[in-house]
Amino acid sequence: MTGHVYLIGAGPGDPELLTLRALRLMQSADVVVHDRLVSDEIMALVPAHVRRVAVGKAAGFHPVPQDRINDILVDLGRAGLMVARLKGGDPTIFGRGGEEYDALSAAGIPSEYVPGITAAQGAAASLRLPLTHRGLATGLRYVTGHRARDAELDLDWASLADPDTTLAVYMGAANMARIATELIGHGMPADLPVLAVSQATTPRERRLRADLSGIAEALQDNPMPAPVLFIIGHVAALARDDASAMIARAALRARCKLVSHG
Amino acid sequence: MTGHVYLIGAGPGDPELLTLRALRLMQSADVVVHDRLVSDEIMALVPAHVRRVAVGKAAGFHPVPQDRINDILVDLGRAGLMVARLKGGDPTIFGRGGEEYDALSAAGIPSEYVPGITAAQGAAASLRLPLTHRGLATGLRYVTGHRARDAELDLDWASLADPDTTLAVYMGAANMARIATELIGHGMPADLPVLAVSQATTPRERRLRADLSGIAEALQDNPMPAPVLFIIGHVAALARDDASAMIARAALRARCKLVSHG
Ligand SMILES: C[S@@+](CC[C@H](N)C(=O)[O-])C[C@H]1O[C@@H](n2cnc3c(N)ncnc32)[C@H](O)[C@@H]1O
Ligand SMILES: C[S@@+](CC[C@H](N)C(=O)[O-])C[C@H]1O[C@@H](n2cnc3c(N)ncnc32)[C@H](O)[C@@H]1O
Repeated sequence: MTGHVYLIGAGPGDPELLTLRALRLMQSADVVVHDRLVSDEIMALVPAHVRRVAVGKAAGFHPVPQDRINDILVDLGRAGLMVARLKGGDPTIFGRGGEEYDALSAAGIPSEYVPGITAAQGAAASLRLPLTHRGLATGLRYVTGHRARDAELDLDWASLADPDTTLAVYMGAANMARIATELIGHGMPADLPVLAVSQATTPRERRLRADLSGIAEALQDNPMPAPVLFIIGHVAALARDDASAMIARAALRARCKLVSHG
Repeated sequence: MTGHVYLIGAGPGDPELLTLRALRLMQSADVVVHDRLVSDEIMALVPAHVRRVAVGKAAGFHPVPQDRINDILVDLGRAGLMVARLKGGDPTIFGRGGEEYDALSAAGIPSEYVPGITAAQGAAASLRLPLTHRGLATGLRYVTGHRARDAELDLDWASLADPDTTLAVYMGAANMARIATELIGHGMPADLPVLAVSQATTPRERRLRADLSGIAEALQDNPMPAPVLFIIGHVAALARDDASAMIARAALRARCKLVSHG
C-alpha cells in the first residue's frame, strides 16, 4: 500500500494564514517534512506524536539538496505513510513543488498540491497595500531575483520595466542593486516606490521603504534577515503605519479566543 | 465608538481553502457583507445569528455599484459594528479591495486586509500544475482581460507575449478571442497550451484545454459558467487527470472528520 504526499503551502509565517485544509492535513499526517521557510509558530501546531523531518538545513548549514528531498518524500510515500510536506508560501510559486510532484509521480506515489498564501499576499495585507489598484496597477507580476549557481540573472528587463504592473521580487536581496539599475536603465522611474519586507506576517516582520534608485543602498545600510520580499510599484506608496491595526488585531484575537472556547 | 471592517479573502470557493483567520472573523463578526464570488458552501459557515448583506446582485440582476458598497461598509463601520467583508479570492488582487479600504480610511474607520487564496492558486492546485516550474516558467503574471465600460482592452501585448512566464488571465472570457489573437500576433506560439477553469475548487468545477490559437473557439463550443480563469503557458501542459485524486481526497476528508471529532 502506497502512501500519499500532500505538497502543502504553509503561507508566509503567521499560523492564522494557514488554510483549514493545511491545518487538518498537518494534524492528521503520519509525518511532516518541513523546510526553513515554515515558521516555528506553525510547527508548534503539529501534534507531538507526528514525526518531523527537517530538510531546511543539514549539518554545517547546507540546505538538503532538492534531489535528496525528492528521495525522502518518495521513500516516505513508499512506506505507505501520509506525508504533509510543508513549504513556505504557496507550493506552486517558486517553491520547487513541481519538482517534488514530478519525482513522486515518476515513482507512482499519489500526491497533490494544497495552495497557500504566497509571500506577496502576506506582505501586502500586512503593509495594507493592494497588489492591484485602479489607476495605480492594472496587473501583478511575480519574478525571482535569484538564478541557479553561476548562471547570469537573465530577466527580460524591457518587459519588466512597466510602472503600471506591481512587481513582487522573490529571492531578490542579493541582486537588488543589479535589478534596480537594469529596471531604471530600461525606463522604470527612478523614484518609483519600493518596499522591502523581511519575515512578513511573523512577529519578527521588518519593513524598509525607499525608491528604486535608493533601495540597494538602503538595504546595505539596514541589512534585513531572510526571507525578504520586494514590492516595486505605485501601490507601494500606499503602505500605512499600523500601530492602530496592531491594537485592533490584539483585541480581535482576544475576542476570537472567547468565541472558540466558549 | 467606531467599528472595524475586515476586507477578507474568502478564496476561490472551496471552504477548506479559507484561512484560519478568515473563518474566525466570519464567525465572530456582527455582520457579513458578501458578493457573488463567495460560494454558498462558504456562506454556510457563517453562524445563523450573524447578519448578512449580499452586495453581489441587487434586484434585476444588476450588481450593486462599487460606490454603494463603499457606503454600506462605511455605514456599518460608523454603527460600531465588526464587519467581515468577504470577497472572492484575495482582496488585494483584482477585487477592488483597495477602493473599499480607501473609502473606509477617508471616513476614519479602521480596516485591514486578510489575504485569501487567489483564483490562479486554487485552479493550479486543482489542476495539479505548478504556476512556476524550472525550465517551463521562470515567473508568473496576473492580468485582467476586462476593461471598464466602453474602454478599449489596452494591454501591453509585446510584454505579455513571453512564453516563459505563466499568464493567469482574470475576467478574460468575453475578450479571449482578442487576447489570443494579440498574443499570437506579438510572437506567442500559437500552440502554447491554455487551460480554462470555471468555478475552480467548487463541486461545479469544469475545465477546458486547448492551445492558444483554438481557445476562443473551444470556449464558444463549450460555454462555461462564470467565473472563468485562464492559465496560459507551458505549465498548462502538466495538468493531470484527477480521478484518483478525488478518491484520495474523499478518503482524507473521512479521516479528518474522525480526527476533528474524536
Ligand atoms: C524559495 S522562495 C519560496 C516562495 C514561496 N513558495 C511563496 O509562495 O511565498 C523564497 C522567497 O520567498 C519570499 N518569502 C517567503 N516567505 C516570506 C516572508 N514571510 N517574508 C518575506 N518574504 C518571504 C522571499 O522573497 C524568499 O526569498
Ligand atoms: C473581480 S475578479 C476577482 C478576483 C479575486 N479577488 C481573486 O483573487 O481570485 C473575478 C475573476 O476572478 C476569477 N475567479 C475568481 N474565482 C474563481 C474561481 N473559483 N474559478 C475560476 N475563476 C475564478 C475569474 O477570472 C473572475 O472573472
